[in-house]
Amino acid sequence: MYVGAQVSLYPMTSDFVEVITRGLDALTPYKDDLRIETDDMSTLMVGAPEPLLDAIRDLFAAAAKWPEHVTMHVTLSRGCPGEPDDPSCHYEELDRSDEAPLATRQALAAEAVGKAPVLGVEVDLQFSLYVMGEGDHMDEIWGCIEFLKSSGTFHKAKNFCTRLRGDAGPVFETLRQAFIRFGPGEGHVTIDMTTSANSPSLG
Amino acid sequence: MYVGAQVSLYPMTSDFVEVITRGLDALTPYKDDLRIETDDMSTLMVGAPEPLLDAIRDLFAAAAKWPEHVTMHVTLSRGCPGEPDDPSCHYEELDRSDEAPLATRQALAAEAVGKAPVLGVEVDLQFSLYVMGEGDHMDEIWGCIEFLKSSGTFHKAKNFCTRLRGDAGPVFETLRQAFIRFGPGEGHVTIDMTTSANSPSLG
Repeated sequence: MYVGAQVSLYPMTSDFVEVITRGLDALTPYKDDLRIETDDMSTLMVGAPEPLLDAIRDLFAAAAKWPEHVTMHVTLSRGCPGEPDDPSCHYEELDRSDEAPLATRQALAAEAVGKAPVLGVEVDLQFSLYVMGEGDHMDEIWGCIEFLKSSGTFHKAKNFCTRLRGDAGPVFETLRQAFIRFGPGEGHVTIDMTTSANSPSLG
Repeated sequence: MYVGAQVSLYPMTSDFVEVITRGLDALTPYKDDLRIETDDMSTLMVGAPEPLLDAIRDLFAAAAKWPEHVTMHVTLSRGCPGEPDDPSCHYEELDRSDEAPLATRQALAAEAVGKAPVLGVEVDLQFSLYVMGEGDHMDEIWGCIEFLKSSGTFHKAKNFCTRLRGDAGPVFETLRQAFIRFGPGEGHVTIDMTTSANSPSLG
């Protein structure tokens, strides 16, 4: 299994380089657990979903603590058949995820969101979950949407994606649960996600 | 068939509202052919791939003509089983795409890129193609990557995505061809794309 993300931080300010640099500092505690490589378009992070989603959350929360409008785009991927197996990405929940019926996984996901830390940073987030290599991929997607609607972080349905809103802690935990609990445990699952804070046109 | 995108423009300047507004002006010629709805996180555009990708390209090219660093994120989707059929999204190439063998579709895609207009705006773009509901989805993805490598706009392979570089005309035509020629004609296919211009850290 190979798990990782391409992450881009976009501060809507002329001092964007400073805000990006400050955000990247928040990744320091995760450098032992994740492989992190930055180029001019995005930062690659490879590792298990626990440090991976914590690092992505902390990167954005660090940048969003400043008054400027900031957004982030993340491409998350697990189980891509084109990527090598990597022991550092091992995550017990993924091994088990397709053994349990949908209702059990929805309950476990909701429980995890309920235990998420509160970070004091409000965010808006929208994402799409893609489950590949299955004839009935929509069953898993509908099951995930059902979990999202009762997660406490659901904001609204949109075409092609679902929108969340709330504190960065539970919102990013909702994202992680969607990523690890839906679709086959060893399957190819991806997420296309954008998040926003301090928007002057909050709707 | 339902075809559309969620589009977000991110200018890295304190005058971001002005740049976004100018970019949105570039959509005016497409308002008859596309359904366009903007909220605080993204702009929904629904319609056939011809006006849809032209509009997305012109939106970004308009914003990138200014000296400021600007990026854009787009979630493209066609054939999502959860969306209603919409005659305005009808596109002949999609009806035919799974009738032709991979090599024919690769040749048609390359021909279209060769005929793309040159806009005089240099862009970097990276994207992932997702083909759902098929056991052998990776065959179509590998076939698409093969087309990309010989497209004239290929820059480099990255984990989870492929990076293009060049004039906005052929680069966005490459994106459209990837979207319409690979995966089943009536299937559920999505693209997760980010593009960048005027980056101070171009690599």
